[in-house]
Formats: sequence, C-alpha cells, structure tokens
Amino acid sequence: MPAKRSGKLYLVPAPLDFGCAVQAPLTDALPAGTLATAARLTHWLCENAKSARAYLKRIDELHPLAAALREQQIVELPREVHKKGDAGFDAKPLLAAAVEGHDIGLLSEAGMPAIADPGSSVVRAAHELGIAVMPLVGPVSLLLALAASGLNGQNFAFVGYLPQEPTARVLRIRELEALALKLGQSQLFIETPYRNAAMWRSLVTTLQPSTRLAVGSGLTLPQAMARGLQVVQWKLEGVPVVNDTPAVFAIGR
Amino acid sequence: MPAKRSGKLYLVPAPLDFGCAVQAPLTDALPAGTLATAARLTHWLCENAKSARAYLKRIDELHPLAAALREQQIVELPREVHKKGDAGFDAKPLLAAAVEGHDIGLLSEAGMPAIADPGSSVVRAAHELGIAVMPLVGPVSLLLALAASGLNGQNFAFVGYLPQEPTARVLRIRELEALALKLGQSQLFIETPYRNAAMWRSLVTTLQPSTRLAVGSGLTLPQAMARGLQVVQWKLEGVPVVNDTPAVFAIGR
Repeated sequence: MPAKRSGKLYLVPAPLDFGCAVQAPLTDALPAGTLATAARLTHWLCENAKSARAYLKRIDELHPLAAALREQQIVELPREVHKKGDAGFDAKPLLAAAVEGHDIGLLSEAGMPAIADPGSSVVRAAHELGIAVMPLVGPVSLLLALAASGLNGQNFAFVGYLPQEPTARVLRIRELEALALKLGQSQLFIETPYRNAAMWRSLVTTLQPSTRLAVGSGLTLPQAMARGLQVVQWKLEGVPVVNDTPAVFAIGR
Repeated sequence: MPAKRSGKLYLVPAPLDFGCAVQAPLTDALPAGTLATAARLTHWLCENAKSARAYLKRIDELHPLAAALREQQIVELPREVHKKGDAGFDAKPLLAAAVEGHDIGLLSEAGMPAIADPGSSVVRAAHELGIAVMPLVGPVSLLLALAASGLNGQNFAFVGYLPQEPTARVLRIRELEALALKLGQSQLFIETPYRNAAMWRSLVTTLQPSTRLAVGSGLTLPQAMARGLQVVQWKLEGVPVVNDTPAVFAIGR
C-alpha cells in the first residue's frame, strides 16, 4: 500500500528534436500542463544528465523552474539498463527520493520514457513501492508515424530494431510481413538514422509488391515527412528522404 | 505526385474526457501548437459532427477559430467505416476539399485519429492522392497506459477488443499471455467501460500468478489511475477502480 507521504513518479515526455540542428518550439509538441508540471519538479531520473539539463533550460524559458538548474537533483539510469534493458533490473533504490516524499520526473532523450526507450524498470519499481505513476502527454514518434501511415491502427505491434546482419534481416522482414498480412496487424520498427536508406532498400527488395510500407520521420519538426504506399508504388516513387532523421517504418496490408 | 495546390490532411487529436462528467483543461493534454493549427482549419472529417463542434467550441475559447462554428464544413465518416472498419473503404471522395486546396482536419471522439479508432482509410486515401499528412501531438490513451504500466515498452502489441463470449475470451487471454511470455511482447487491449470489472475478473482468474497485469484508466483526467503488478499481487490488492472510465489493459512478463 502507498505510504501516506510518498511522492509521485511523473513520466515526462521530451520533444523529438534531440540532436537536431534546428529545434522546434516546445509548445508545438508539449501541452502547457506537461511543461508546468515538469517546471515544478526538482528530482529527476534520466538517460543523460546533460540533455536533461538542456531540456529543463528550455522549459525554464516558458515556465520558470521551481529550483535553479544547479539545485536540481538529476540522476542517470545506470549503464546496465541501457545495455541489458529493463528486464530484471531492480530500480527501487533509484526511487528513494519519492519514498521520502519528493515527486520525481522520469525523462528519456526524446519522446515518452519507457516507450521504445529505457525506463520500464523504474515504473515497475514505483508500482511495487506503491508510488503513484502519472504519465504526462507529449510526442510519441511511433504513434505519430502509425497514425500518419494509413495502415491499420486498430491492431499493431512495435518490435524495436531489426537484425543488422543481411540474411537475418531479410528473414525478419519476411516474418513481419507474414504477420502483417495474416493477422492484419501492422508491424512497426525503427532504425538508426544513418542506416535508414539501407533499411529502405532491404524493405522494397524483400516485400511483396502489394504489401503496404510506410515511413515517418522528423514528425513534429519542420522536416516532418510521413508517407505510406504499396511497395509497387514506392518502386515508382523512389527512396523517401529519411536519412539522418530518426525514422519509424511500418509494414501492413 | 502531389498537385501543387492541394491542401494537407492534419490528424488532430482530441482530449480523453469524451463523455466524462468533469472535463480537464484542454491545455493539460494538447500542445498550443496543436490547438492553434486546429483553430485555423475550416474543413473537418470526423466520427460525429456534434462532438466535433463541441471540441471546436472548447478550442475557440483558447484560440479563436478562423471561421465561425456554423461556417465550418464538418463531414462525418460514413457508417460503413464505423461498422466494417477502414479496410477496403475508398475514402478519396471525402478528400475532395483537400484536392481543391483546403487543409482538412481528421478528428476522432477521443485521442488520436486512426489509432484504436477509425480513420486509417482517410490517411491511406491522402497518400494515394499525394496529399501531405501531418500528425499533431496529443493524448493517446494506449501509449500513456503502456508507459505507466511498468511492462516492456520496447516490444508491444495492441490487439483491440477481446471476444465477449466467455470461453472464447478465456482462450484469447491465454493466447495473449503465451505471446507476452514467449516473445516478451507486452499485449495491450481495451474494453467497453461498463464491462471493465468483468474483464478484470476474467484476467485474474485466467492468467498465471507470476504474469504481470496492468491497467490504465482516465489518464490525463482528474480520476487518472495506472497500476501494474503480478497477478498474485493483484489478488491480494483486489479489483482496481476502473468502472465507467475507458481503460487500457496490458499483459506482460
């Protein structure tokens, strides 16, 4: 049962312009309610303290922070979580401040923490400690890309990264296509930006002509691009401009 | 290829308080950028014209609409799409205004259009007509629930509704549990609010004690609740308060 005075764990989304040369206004992608809540927090768990501070600085320009940047308690998730994932990691010690009564914000580099990013072990630990978990609204690249794909959004899966090794990658693409066609379940996945064009070539050469293939990149940013077509149409239209921007790919029928 | 003067299709998210007695401020769940874009649109495709007007009225209080409510062109998606789904529906005629150069907004009753809701046929038609698709940021109950579940958010599926018939439902729950345990892929689904408690009983009696089960309901609203525990822990804690509020359920390991 929750201790009477424990703080809450806020899941604070970040904008999707991480690492981009041109940043979009925070108010394009984050509700005032999210920014105001973030501004009053003083304890943070994050992937990277430097980018957390940069984000807080941007928030401060719109909603003055409750504590000066240098007074914010910012703790990075251990390397272990980045490398091995959240499964099996006991994050309860990271929530000591919440047990003591402080609200804590969980941040990822871009988008929603614990979605296509580390953090679920922290949320799991919060539930086990009886700490209330409050997700705040913000951009989620996967869902923006799915909505804009034209593919079935009433049954879908996100499977992370595909194998890099060419043969394994082709097998995985065929497996995902079979699932998409058989179940009508759209299959979403991501790729490291500099490999976007290679991923694209693997997809259009491996998938059947009538299979639908969609890509969304730079969503919420000035360079936003979302497009979904049958593979046969893509072959006529050519490779979309997705290089160097995080992209979400989707296969469907 | 896009016609030079065609309008764009904006995917406009709606707040999650549809049908709720108490509404939360729009600014809690929608970025100023989304509201400002919606305010300048004058052509709409929606599930229900009455609720689209009610939403526009709320937007108007914060960002004055470019055209008075009575001058807005609001077109409902045909019954066919609600009943049979988007597959096979040709929505190109609904985009005539965009072909003529007007930007169009696509709206669902709550959350993101085309995600766990109709609308993907409209997006598909836009891509086929070369109309740019612009997804705007807003609340997506599935993703808020997943982030707050403590379950794996790096591999997950959303499968819509489960069967209502008791035997079929139990079989489907077992099938989803097997997928979740075998693949480590969190399985998300939804239920009609008045059946939430019955769904809950089916889940705790059917799932294995060590399986993780999470529920999120009323997220972004004052009655927000998100909790994820092993089934054995849920049995001690009892049924969560999720009745009468749209809820998202998730099974994972």
